[in-house]
Amino acid sequence: MSRILTGIQSSGRPHLGNILGAIKPAIELSKQPGNESFLFIADLHSLTTLKDGPTRNEYIQAVAATWLAFGLDTAKNTFWRQSRVAEHTELCWYLNCFTPFPMLNNATSFKEKSDKLSDINAGLFVYPVLQAADILLYDAEIIPVGKDQRQHIEMTRDIASTFNRQYDDEVFVLPEARIDDRLMTIPGIDGQKMSKSYNNYINIFLPENELWKVIKKIKSDSTPLEEPKNPDTDITFQLYSLIASDEQTAELRSLYKGGNYGYGTAKKAFYELILTTFATERERYNYYTIDNPDALEAELQAGEEKARAVASKTIARVREKLGFS
Amino acid sequence: MSRILTGIQSSGRPHLGNILGAIKPAIELSKQPGNESFLFIADLHSLTTLKDGPTRNEYIQAVAATWLAFGLDTAKNTFWRQSRVAEHTELCWYLNCFTPFPMLNNATSFKEKSDKLSDINAGLFVYPVLQAADILLYDAEIIPVGKDQRQHIEMTRDIASTFNRQYDDEVFVLPEARIDDRLMTIPGIDGQKMSKSYNNYINIFLPENELWKVIKKIKSDSTPLEEPKNPDTDITFQLYSLIASDEQTAELRSLYKGGNYGYGTAKKAFYELILTTFATERERYNYYTIDNPDALEAELQAGEEKARAVASKTIARVREKLGFS
Repeated sequence: MSRILTGIQSSGRPHLGNILGAIKPAIELSKQPGNESFLFIADLHSLTTLKDGPTRNEYIQAVAATWLAFGLDTAKNTFWRQSRVAEHTELCWYLNCFTPFPMLNNATSFKEKSDKLSDINAGLFVYPVLQAADILLYDAEIIPVGKDQRQHIEMTRDIASTFNRQYDDEVFVLPEARIDDRLMTIPGIDGQKMSKSYNNYINIFLPENELWKVIKKIKSDSTPLEEPKNPDTDITFQLYSLIASDEQTAELRSLYKGGNYGYGTAKKAFYELILTTFATERERYNYYTIDNPDALEAELQAGEEKARAVASKTIARVREKLGFS
Repeated sequence: MSRILTGIQSSGRPHLGNILGAIKPAIELSKQPGNESFLFIADLHSLTTLKDGPTRNEYIQAVAATWLAFGLDTAKNTFWRQSRVAEHTELCWYLNCFTPFPMLNNATSFKEKSDKLSDINAGLFVYPVLQAADILLYDAEIIPVGKDQRQHIEMTRDIASTFNRQYDDEVFVLPEARIDDRLMTIPGIDGQKMSKSYNNYINIFLPENELWKVIKKIKSDSTPLEEPKNPDTDITFQLYSLIASDEQTAELRSLYKGGNYGYGTAKKAFYELILTTFATERERYNYYTIDNPDALEAELQAGEEKARAVASKTIARVREKLGFS
């Protein structure tokens, strides 16, 4: 039985890149019999860069609805909003006092953010400590991360070891990073990596006419209609193949190579493939965001109770060591 | 009606210097009819320098018992342990995200601590943000502080203004520092400022024989017994005059000047003055720490309920703005 923990960003609406690259793989992992997944919406972290409340609420709702739409089993796993479990920030303060200042000051992620952002706040600086709290609070054993997050998991291990050594006891479980090198890079409509910050993403939950407007904008070259086209350099083809069956992909490939097949038709095929492939997910997404947001709220609140039950036990162990009980 | 807030250090047992210089004046202030005092034991802050749990618990108990022994009216005022009100660390995280990193990096107190301490942890760095949370959580208007703390109150005002401006609303009350220039410096038994770090302090709650052992060690010069002595340069005389009536002080002064009056006798007089002056306080201290620690715990828990009632309203206002409600 492995306890896997994943923090879910909530500084935007999930797009096709997030779904194929992160959400679907995490849900697959959570379904494996030996696994128990803890998945939380990292809305406290989002405050470091996003200040507007209503926008955050919309994003949180969109994120939660996406995970549920894609079939996350909330009975088997634990799914909650970080901000609703007070133990996260409480443990963050405790861990601050066991985190060497120079370690944070030398963190690569802070240096990168400091270079890019105009608002360099203390939250960005202490970010890895809140992350350590998120992980340690749930005795998580495995943290699936991209390479860029490896340093943060190392920090978590360092902080946890310092604490355990101080009190000569295994208060915290030391987590292991599971680096996924095979992480797919999903191209955006301009061919760059699909990303909110490049504004090149596809939101598969858009109403049909809006979705079509986005798909239509996928970049293509100027090969004339009659001529054969190279599927391997075309963005629409790449995107199509990511969700199509092998047969469908092979079929589209031969249409490209045969000529007299335009990019507009390919885009239409991709658009229709989205609608059919994600028909159930689109329906469930609308159910949670439009028809019955109370059901979404209820799912999250139930998750928060489950999360609190685990977190409160860990924090009790910690408080006892610190003399706060 | 002014709402006054004071954070009480808990990284040691209160000594005579703390009592005369801070505790008694704060209790006097809390008694003034127009005032409502919020006094909290800053045990979360103590974690930045003190890691041992049982020691912290002992100190917290000693601090709480001292304030109660000196007559703090917990019905009129609010008296609690910071660590027991989760809203402190929650608000601390939120405020981190509104605190410019350079402001903390340039804080004088952090620079001073970094020079002195070997364990420079992130808690020390973020200390002023937790302090801001302590203040803003209770809509405190007046913060009585020494000069060295003025910068921290300025930071609190800055953070609160940034937040209020961001949401275009008076979410937080901007506190005013009340700098007390007349702060007494109480000499320790070696003549330096009485301080835990100099190990030159007088704990007035010690059992009689132990108290006498400390008083006996007060430094004095080598003037022979028969000769007149200078009261104004003698530490025992200074300490005596701080708690004696004017008549008692005048009487001791003439004994010093008359000669044939030894320092040992003066020390005995000071020792006896402590026992009589603080007879009630010593009794009540023993009641709370030895005879009935449950009564102390009950007082604190009642204070924590009162504190939570105020803090939870503030945090609800904040959460609403942030999109966490």
